[in-house]
Amino acid sequence: MVEKIDHIKDEINNYLNKEENVKEDWIEDNHPIDIAEALSELEASKINSFTKLLETEDLADIFEESEKDLQIDILKCKNSEEIIEIFSHMAADDITDILGLLPIQKRKELLRHMKQDDALVVKNLLGYDRESAGGIMTTEYLLLNKNLKTIEALQKLKKIAPDTEIIDTIFVSDDNKKLVGSVDLRDILSSDDEKKLEDLMDDNIIKVSADVDQEIVAQQVAKYDLTVIPVINKSGILIGIITVDDIIDVIEAENTEDLYKMHGVDEEESSDATLFQSVKSRLPWMFINLATAFLATFTVAIFEDVISQVVALAAAMPIVAGMGGNAGTQTLSIVIRGIALGEIDFKDNWKLLLKEAMVGIINGAATGLVTGLILYLMYGNYYLGIIIFMAMILNLLIAGMFGFLIPLSLQSLGIDPALASAIFLTTVTDVFGFFVFLGLARTFLIYLV
Amino acid sequence: MVEKIDHIKDEINNYLNKEENVKEDWIEDNHPIDIAEALSELEASKINSFTKLLETEDLADIFEESEKDLQIDILKCKNSEEIIEIFSHMAADDITDILGLLPIQKRKELLRHMKQDDALVVKNLLGYDRESAGGIMTTEYLLLNKNLKTIEALQKLKKIAPDTEIIDTIFVSDDNKKLVGSVDLRDILSSDDEKKLEDLMDDNIIKVSADVDQEIVAQQVAKYDLTVIPVINKSGILIGIITVDDIIDVIEAENTEDLYKMHGVDEEESSDATLFQSVKSRLPWMFINLATAFLATFTVAIFEDVISQVVALAAAMPIVAGMGGNAGTQTLSIVIRGIALGEIDFKDNWKLLLKEAMVGIINGAATGLVTGLILYLMYGNYYLGIIIFMAMILNLLIAGMFGFLIPLSLQSLGIDPALASAIFLTTVTDVFGFFVFLGLARTFLIYLV
Repeated sequence: MVEKIDHIKDEINNYLNKEENVKEDWIEDNHPIDIAEALSELEASKINSFTKLLETEDLADIFEESEKDLQIDILKCKNSEEIIEIFSHMAADDITDILGLLPIQKRKELLRHMKQDDALVVKNLLGYDRESAGGIMTTEYLLLNKNLKTIEALQKLKKIAPDTEIIDTIFVSDDNKKLVGSVDLRDILSSDDEKKLEDLMDDNIIKVSADVDQEIVAQQVAKYDLTVIPVINKSGILIGIITVDDIIDVIEAENTEDLYKMHGVDEEESSDATLFQSVKSRLPWMFINLATAFLATFTVAIFEDVISQVVALAAAMPIVAGMGGNAGTQTLSIVIRGIALGEIDFKDNWKLLLKEAMVGIINGAATGLVTGLILYLMYGNYYLGIIIFMAMILNLLIAGMFGFLIPLSLQSLGIDPALASAIFLTTVTDVFGFFVFLGLARTFLIYLV
Repeated sequence: MVEKIDHIKDEINNYLNKEENVKEDWIEDNHPIDIAEALSELEASKINSFTKLLETEDLADIFEESEKDLQIDILKCKNSEEIIEIFSHMAADDITDILGLLPIQKRKELLRHMKQDDALVVKNLLGYDRESAGGIMTTEYLLLNKNLKTIEALQKLKKIAPDTEIIDTIFVSDDNKKLVGSVDLRDILSSDDEKKLEDLMDDNIIKVSADVDQEIVAQQVAKYDLTVIPVINKSGILIGIITVDDIIDVIEAENTEDLYKMHGVDEEESSDATLFQSVKSRLPWMFINLATAFLATFTVAIFEDVISQVVALAAAMPIVAGMGGNAGTQTLSIVIRGIALGEIDFKDNWKLLLKEAMVGIINGAATGLVTGLILYLMYGNYYLGIIIFMAMILNLLIAGMFGFLIPLSLQSLGIDPALASAIFLTTVTDVFGFFVFLGLARTFLIYLV
């Protein structure tokens, strides 16, 4: 992989040295995304020079596949006319994404320069939330009337196919333009010429409204093994489609987001972020963590008199808090994935809560027993062992219950359950863990000193 | 969603009460996966009775879309002949997956009962690792010779289309059966009748070997926006294809796996696991955690004399350890996702390591300053503030470096970086955090008491 990109980079440098226009052969032999990847490793001035050696259509292909940063680098050195020229080879939804990156002034200027029809489509798309079905759909679908005969449909398709990037699912509408079904190209191909699309189509199709969240769209596509899902407006009219390659991007993005959010990293931070971006992305979360860490510190501070009499408590207390945090995060992972995959059934909530509580008690008892034994051997006081045994059971019980309740509560409040779940949880397990262990120690202090 | 499934469940119960064969209309109106979902919520005896009301072909459709547990429930109440009958409506790769679930004895018996050709294909597929390209590929591809004219190709396709579930990418081979390109059905449709496939095909196609890990396959499909990827053997001959819906399953599975592994949950545990399964899945990890927690305890125990003189240290020390753990997990999330998405470039390793170290120092200084101030205000001793400030910088520096190095080291050892990364990391940040903070306290003890 890396070698392939390096090779393309060398060839780009060759073209640049010779100031020679890029050969069509070379474009065919290399995937636009690989060229984009190679380009992104070059300096801005070289990128600029190389774009001038490309046909606009090829540049548009590469541009579409580029990461945001490279797209901005390329746009910076082009005037509005050149940009409009690139746009003319691109799909409306990709143009919309790029306009979304630009300052409002530049965006308006470009929209003014575009053909009126195209501008209208793009303006319309800009109106949807970026993470909704409308925000990720493309308007390049194929819609035929249900009364067409297959031979007529085939003729239409033959005419359109070379020009548009149609996909192999054709949508079918009634006379009121309402979406009523879909038919596969291969079915049209193999049926009687005189058969109507209406008789051939599948009328039980999965569709989504434009305002549905992209995560829900992805769940539907994954569940029903779709390669394309139609997007309809309130009147049931087809306004766009979402293809499976865009769904994969959504799934990857949402998964990264979940993992990042759970651990307090900004969703925009990628592994090649700059130092400044990384600090900016992570420092706010560290301060939130610090605030909750102080809650734990204040809890311990209440028991300083107990610790000063039995210093062993200071050594043992991180075990109670830490094990609670670990157990709770296990529950958290299961519940967050369950929500993301649409598996958690809210009706059975109390059963699952009870199960997590039981897991907490059992795992707490098992690990607490071992912990108690080791502490007894270390300090020769079996009351210390009993106290930590009890504290572990209680803290893991709490951990299991909160690991389950926190993400579900956030979810029902409309907050992303991945966000902040972990921090709420460890705050609970730290504070409660220290409190219950040191509290038990104070209660039985006479047996410990 | 839930209502839809409940509705289907009611209708299944209706059919069961009336002991009436299921209507073809009903099958067409309901997606097999929804029927499977509704079935999985019924008792085994009802499932068994309902399967008898279905045409074998419809049962096969539902069976293919079922979760493992439901598949096993269905198979349990069928004899070998009935199972073979179901299999006859299924793709070889799906049959292979199911045979993989069965005890070896039952598997052999079923293979003996199958048609010899089919059995051979399945036996062959069983030979591949379940998580390799060969393990997830299907053998239902469409391969045509490059010398065919498009009109001949179309005739062939028309004949095959109604019988097989072909997809719209047709692969092209040379006279030695070697895969040389691919062509879209729509391109065949819109080209001259006399044109050869050779002149129409894209010869720069992305393909994988059968032994490639499924995660790599998913990366390729996602990167190049493919809807199907061909699988070849060592001689370059097409032996199967992987369609994008299976890739989505791979991506979902690998993501769940990463999140679970990071937090010590067995990859097989879903949100509806039983209590026993959950305990069994999570307890081993809790004991590993316990072992590392004791490393932290032993570290603190070395400094018990210091703590007994300055009890404030016991209250403050969880901050140093905890903040290190949080910072390290942020780095970990970024690196693990970077590896999973194929973004981490090993050449630039030292640059990224340096960046993470710098982020650690900066975030450590920022949060350490605030922590030091608050502790000074709490205990009126500014040496305590300075000590924790220094300890935080050092521990977050270590956290950033290990958060980066641990997953990359595991990766280069051939171990999944998501597995155990978090536990190694928090062990380091706990032990080092306590050690550096309490060590500094001992050094400057005279200023603290």
